[in-house]
Amino acid sequence: MKTEVVIIGGGPSGLLLSQLLNKAGVATVVLERSSREHVLSRIRAGILEWGTVELLREAGVGTRMDAEGYPHDGTYLTDAELMVHIDFKGLTGKQVMVYGQTEVTQDLYGAQDAMGTQVIHGVEEVTIHDLDASEAAVEYTLNGERHRISCAYVAGCDGFHGVSRKTIPEEKRREFERVYPFGWLGILSRTPPVHDELIYSNSPHGFALASMRNENLVRYYVQVPLTDKVVDWSDERFWTEFKRRIPSEAAAKLVTGPSIEKSIAPLRSFVSEPLRWGRLFLVGDAAHIVPPTGAKGLNLAVSDVYYLHEALIAALKSGQTAGIDGYSERALARIWKAMRFSWQMTTMLHRFEGEDSFAEEMRRATLRHLADSETARKDLAENYVGLPF
Amino acid sequence: MKTEVVIIGGGPSGLLLSQLLNKAGVATVVLERSSREHVLSRIRAGILEWGTVELLREAGVGTRMDAEGYPHDGTYLTDAELMVHIDFKGLTGKQVMVYGQTEVTQDLYGAQDAMGTQVIHGVEEVTIHDLDASEAAVEYTLNGERHRISCAYVAGCDGFHGVSRKTIPEEKRREFERVYPFGWLGILSRTPPVHDELIYSNSPHGFALASMRNENLVRYYVQVPLTDKVVDWSDERFWTEFKRRIPSEAAAKLVTGPSIEKSIAPLRSFVSEPLRWGRLFLVGDAAHIVPPTGAKGLNLAVSDVYYLHEALIAALKSGQTAGIDGYSERALARIWKAMRFSWQMTTMLHRFEGEDSFAEEMRRATLRHLADSETARKDLAENYVGLPF
Repeated sequence: MKTEVVIIGGGPSGLLLSQLLNKAGVATVVLERSSREHVLSRIRAGILEWGTVELLREAGVGTRMDAEGYPHDGTYLTDAELMVHIDFKGLTGKQVMVYGQTEVTQDLYGAQDAMGTQVIHGVEEVTIHDLDASEAAVEYTLNGERHRISCAYVAGCDGFHGVSRKTIPEEKRREFERVYPFGWLGILSRTPPVHDELIYSNSPHGFALASMRNENLVRYYVQVPLTDKVVDWSDERFWTEFKRRIPSEAAAKLVTGPSIEKSIAPLRSFVSEPLRWGRLFLVGDAAHIVPPTGAKGLNLAVSDVYYLHEALIAALKSGQTAGIDGYSERALARIWKAMRFSWQMTTMLHRFEGEDSFAEEMRRATLRHLADSETARKDLAENYVGLPF
Repeated sequence: MKTEVVIIGGGPSGLLLSQLLNKAGVATVVLERSSREHVLSRIRAGILEWGTVELLREAGVGTRMDAEGYPHDGTYLTDAELMVHIDFKGLTGKQVMVYGQTEVTQDLYGAQDAMGTQVIHGVEEVTIHDLDASEAAVEYTLNGERHRISCAYVAGCDGFHGVSRKTIPEEKRREFERVYPFGWLGILSRTPPVHDELIYSNSPHGFALASMRNENLVRYYVQVPLTDKVVDWSDERFWTEFKRRIPSEAAAKLVTGPSIEKSIAPLRSFVSEPLRWGRLFLVGDAAHIVPPTGAKGLNLAVSDVYYLHEALIAALKSGQTAGIDGYSERALARIWKAMRFSWQMTTMLHRFEGEDSFAEEMRRATLRHLADSETARKDLAENYVGLPF
């Protein structure tokens, strides 16, 4: 088999890349380890930057998002004493869109089906070959049989644990990591949200985030020690803890109900450089992870896709290789800024065990500076709604 | 003896407070441990916020500053790769003034002499009494004789090691501290500056600051381990190290010469709360220390003086005590913001021993965000030129 671009990974970044390439007449094959049902069952991010929204529209998958998504004009940051509104719309003219990653993925699958592109599920033992030759190849096993696809380029959209990054020799990779000493316990529940905008709450009892998916579906989080397990957290314990970590006005409106999903995610920052290795290009979680504070994970994968789709189209359609030659540097410049923002938001909003009282006062002062300085709020808002591609 | 306000400490903050109070008809006595010559020999800060400049003018000590000071429109931040200009004037409409603390102090002494106020040098064994009574008192020894001054209020402008803060019972003080694991080795030299604006340089060899006092007097610094001593640093060693830490364009213009002053200062952040204890009010270094990165030390003492002189005049002239009752909270709100700014500047511009590569990349990303975002530069500029009183 032969194609122009093999895309490893059928999550939102792989599918969006496939969608944009096929629309431009570039042939792709998407290889996904899991079933479509499994991919669609993953509960992940829910906040889209406006650049992401626009790219999804451009890719032809904006209709349901525009009908069912919730544009948010701002967000709240708070501690026990002070509540600061970050007015995205007023400060930047832009909004963010609340629309779950699961929904984005479902729309992309639908669009890929309609275009008749190749998305192969259930592949195993993927290996990547000949990245420094005139033609690359990807091999995989499907139903016990080994297959090989020749291609011009390989896009590694297969996440942190995928084969793509590991195909770059370890001694040629520079990896950067920061592990935060806590995780987020998140639940989904079919209840009305406490607020129509998100509330990031750095309470004396630890961090909590009140987020929502729609008028009757919430996504709520509390900061927990890394040693905690999901079984330690009954719904009742979660609601009690969540309620005392959010501002009292929000707590007064809290409606509780059974959780329909509950999981603990560790928080970390990770970057692997470079993003290009011969004919292979890394995208999204395959090369970088952000803590969820600031909602940059999916959006950063989308900006990689933005740069890479332009670069691949230019290379394959016009023989212009400046884009692919510059991909790693161009994408990394934006990645590091989002890393900085996510790290800063995480540091500003969480208590760290063993920290001194000065660190606590710096968080207090940062929130007070935001409350009093429109410029500081604008800087946060510009980063939150997304820096330009 | 009896007066309205006893001011302990004859440095710039004590003298400025005395000046502003006497101008409003409030009687003061300033008590200073050292001789005038010794006070004037201290080499300290050299950058005045515009609010400081305006308050000095209002106090009647602006003439020589306006004639001999150097208004700066901006500053540079750099690492080995990137040089970012922070255009204070363009971003905030304000400047800062380069005018040494020694000069400010000299002008204040001159003005106090002209007014005939009481500044007593050489006092020893200062003690503060009756802070919760209807009249306070300060005792001191001068030429072997014990003296007592009765007064309405006491202003503690006597620095970190002074008696004022320690007069507040230890169990009633909340102290916050951050010690940075390095110092600044600073020299004064009668040479022309490498640049007409300041350059903050986070080089691979460590931090350096190229600062100036006038067209033939520079104040240059390099970050050094806390274990280093001044005797370890010959002029030659200083110049070699300084030269390789500043951008090559600046290094090419470097003129070296003998140092006329050389000292190592540790870097730390410190705050003691509250600033009021009955009839005693703490000002400046008596209650708070900032690292020099960002030039906030003297300016923060001046903002304390600003709040306190208003409050004391209202209390003594109109019997309105809201100002003195609110002094601690009002001053601390601004102090913590300057603490945050100084800590952030220090963290952004120095390498910390034992830090991981992620921390280094966060510094890199912060500088790049400043380079690309006018909003981020504006936030820095607003803090540098000084938040409003």
